[in-house]
Amino acid sequence: MTTIHPVAGVRIGIASAGIKKVGRKDVVVFELTEGTSTVGVFTRNAFCAAPVIVAKENLARTQPKYLLVNTGNANAGTGSPGIQATQATLACLADATGCTPNQILPFSTGVIGEPLPVAKIEAALPAVLADLSADHWLLAAEGIMTTDTRPKVVSRQVEFGGESFVITGVTKGAGMIRPNMATMLSYVATDLAVDTALLQQALVRAVEQSYHRITVDGDTSTNDACTLSATAQSTLPRIESDNELYQVFCTALDDVLLELAQMMVRDGEGATKFFQIEVSGGKTEQECLDVAFTIAESPLVKTALFASDPNWGRLLAAIGRAGVQDLVIDDVTLHLNDVLIAEQGRRADSYTEEQGVAAMAPTDVVLRVSLNRGAAQTTVYTTDFSYDYVRINAEYRT
Amino acid sequence: MTTIHPVAGVRIGIASAGIKKVGRKDVVVFELTEGTSTVGVFTRNAFCAAPVIVAKENLARTQPKYLLVNTGNANAGTGSPGIQATQATLACLADATGCTPNQILPFSTGVIGEPLPVAKIEAALPAVLADLSADHWLLAAEGIMTTDTRPKVVSRQVEFGGESFVITGVTKGAGMIRPNMATMLSYVATDLAVDTALLQQALVRAVEQSYHRITVDGDTSTNDACTLSATAQSTLPRIESDNELYQVFCTALDDVLLELAQMMVRDGEGATKFFQIEVSGGKTEQECLDVAFTIAESPLVKTALFASDPNWGRLLAAIGRAGVQDLVIDDVTLHLNDVLIAEQGRRADSYTEEQGVAAMAPTDVVLRVSLNRGAAQTTVYTTDFSYDYVRINAEYRT
Repeated sequence: MTTIHPVAGVRIGIASAGIKKVGRKDVVVFELTEGTSTVGVFTRNAFCAAPVIVAKENLARTQPKYLLVNTGNANAGTGSPGIQATQATLACLADATGCTPNQILPFSTGVIGEPLPVAKIEAALPAVLADLSADHWLLAAEGIMTTDTRPKVVSRQVEFGGESFVITGVTKGAGMIRPNMATMLSYVATDLAVDTALLQQALVRAVEQSYHRITVDGDTSTNDACTLSATAQSTLPRIESDNELYQVFCTALDDVLLELAQMMVRDGEGATKFFQIEVSGGKTEQECLDVAFTIAESPLVKTALFASDPNWGRLLAAIGRAGVQDLVIDDVTLHLNDVLIAEQGRRADSYTEEQGVAAMAPTDVVLRVSLNRGAAQTTVYTTDFSYDYVRINAEYRT
Repeated sequence: MTTIHPVAGVRIGIASAGIKKVGRKDVVVFELTEGTSTVGVFTRNAFCAAPVIVAKENLARTQPKYLLVNTGNANAGTGSPGIQATQATLACLADATGCTPNQILPFSTGVIGEPLPVAKIEAALPAVLADLSADHWLLAAEGIMTTDTRPKVVSRQVEFGGESFVITGVTKGAGMIRPNMATMLSYVATDLAVDTALLQQALVRAVEQSYHRITVDGDTSTNDACTLSATAQSTLPRIESDNELYQVFCTALDDVLLELAQMMVRDGEGATKFFQIEVSGGKTEQECLDVAFTIAESPLVKTALFASDPNWGRLLAAIGRAGVQDLVIDDVTLHLNDVLIAEQGRRADSYTEEQGVAAMAPTDVVLRVSLNRGAAQTTVYTTDFSYDYVRINAEYRT
């Protein structure tokens, strides 16, 4: 486990409200110090959950002092009573802390369509607030888990001109994982002071190359959200322009989010493989993305991956249906790790089945697709489709 | 089993060439009488197999006298040697029958990327030709099977003005099933005489509402083809315009292709359910299709279906990410069979879990989605995602 650096200005409290399972830690509160800037990105699913609607409204209005998260219930598919339920929990936390309800961002994850158990959450809030501590990032990562099998936290301390800053983030999500966003909640904080517009720009850019580049099953959740808070507690100067410190911050943020995103893929429901798909030589990044996601979401590719079968025919078939205009399949080359497996629309002459089997054997497999028609490229991360994926999703909710 | 009506002017021969398994019937030839008009539709996968390339060329050039089909090897991902292999089999059949190679349409299905065993196919052709009979439609349906568990043949005799005509068709396909087209080969014939342009128009229309409305796993094959031959042996007048007989023919053809398409879904790899998704109230048919296919291909919906779980939250989540512009999820209503399960973005007040469980229990489940924003509608057919789907596709080729 990486060293987890607390972020000055952030305290975290966790408690058990018994929302779905008795004794399970299922309510997490992040307290953000005065002067913190927070930005966020949210699911693009038209069917978005009540807390997402409220969080977006509140974030547009003012800077939040608290993030209130529950698991066990997504408060999605709950209509206007769901909005009221969310507002009730915010009012209760606002009363207890002396802020206003719109200074709190709500987040929920778990079962869709069940009424949010407001009274249980309210009853747990005193314990959550009594638990507030700067050292609770790992507990927060555990507190937001649903079908995840392990907590996901990434932390970096970055030196800059003899001083340093910190970025620490947690995420959750294992199924219903698809860019825009995954079934994920992610909370990231830094002790830097950053202009809000620049902070938003940094988050959008980092999310684009991380959470928007992973897929487990192609489904987009109703509840996804990722926030980034800058607490302004570092001794480094406030970032007001696209300067050197901002670039260093952005690079570190990209790194943290990519590592969190990859953790989600590795912990994907039923995952036995980590499949990195690098598509290069496209005319545009979009056509590289189309090819990469068509491969990543093909059930035939994913079941072959589960079987460690170097089934390049299924790969070419997926590329061929990705909708790339005037694609010449004979120009495409495929490598598994460093083994050339297909070119000129067929198996490479140099290829042997033994090489393919060896390339597919490890947990981590890299597929390199070159379209050989341009200079654009992208990378996407996914998992295989296993018996356990079916079991988990057939049994969940029963 | 339905009565199978032979089509005057079509004879079918089947034999075993031992392409993949010794003793398995794997070569089928359709002989089409002089004066037959044949039209076809083919896969839109940019990575299309050698026989598809050759069949399209030959069909554009002249009317075929023979259709030559093999299973056990798709001759896809074989590059220019694959084209030469296909041409070699055509030359051999042309020699044996006295036609020219371009009067034959080739079709292959099976493993991708292995060289076509030309010598085996050539060696089997005398037995195939000796076997030619008008009564071999069921044997043809068996001869083109790959992972199918049962033959698929549909036949209709249609009365018209005291006379009658026949439409009989066979199809195969169980996985890699996605519109445009499925992993399917389909051969349909009628004894009517039909102008070629009208015949093509009838086929395209019927395919649009049948083979292009089914999905098992969202993958599009490299080898799909559907042909329709009109042998002109019926006593009914030749169809030269969009007259009453043409309308009757089109309706019967639609019916035959829809039944064949539904047979493919019911025999989908690992299928335990037949899921009919009716989307109505769209502004355009395309947005209805987007919603229907997003539901049909959602692994979360398909695993819930496998579990007979009325998980309407996953249904709304799929609808919400289907990309419909300005969709108001609160306007959407969902029925499972006749049970209203969700409206106003949430579970219907009248809904009980018992009703939902009862609706999901049968093999056949109808989902009705109303978008309530227009007059367009469509229907799509799919199956669930089961352990057996994973097993079949993880084990295939090993």
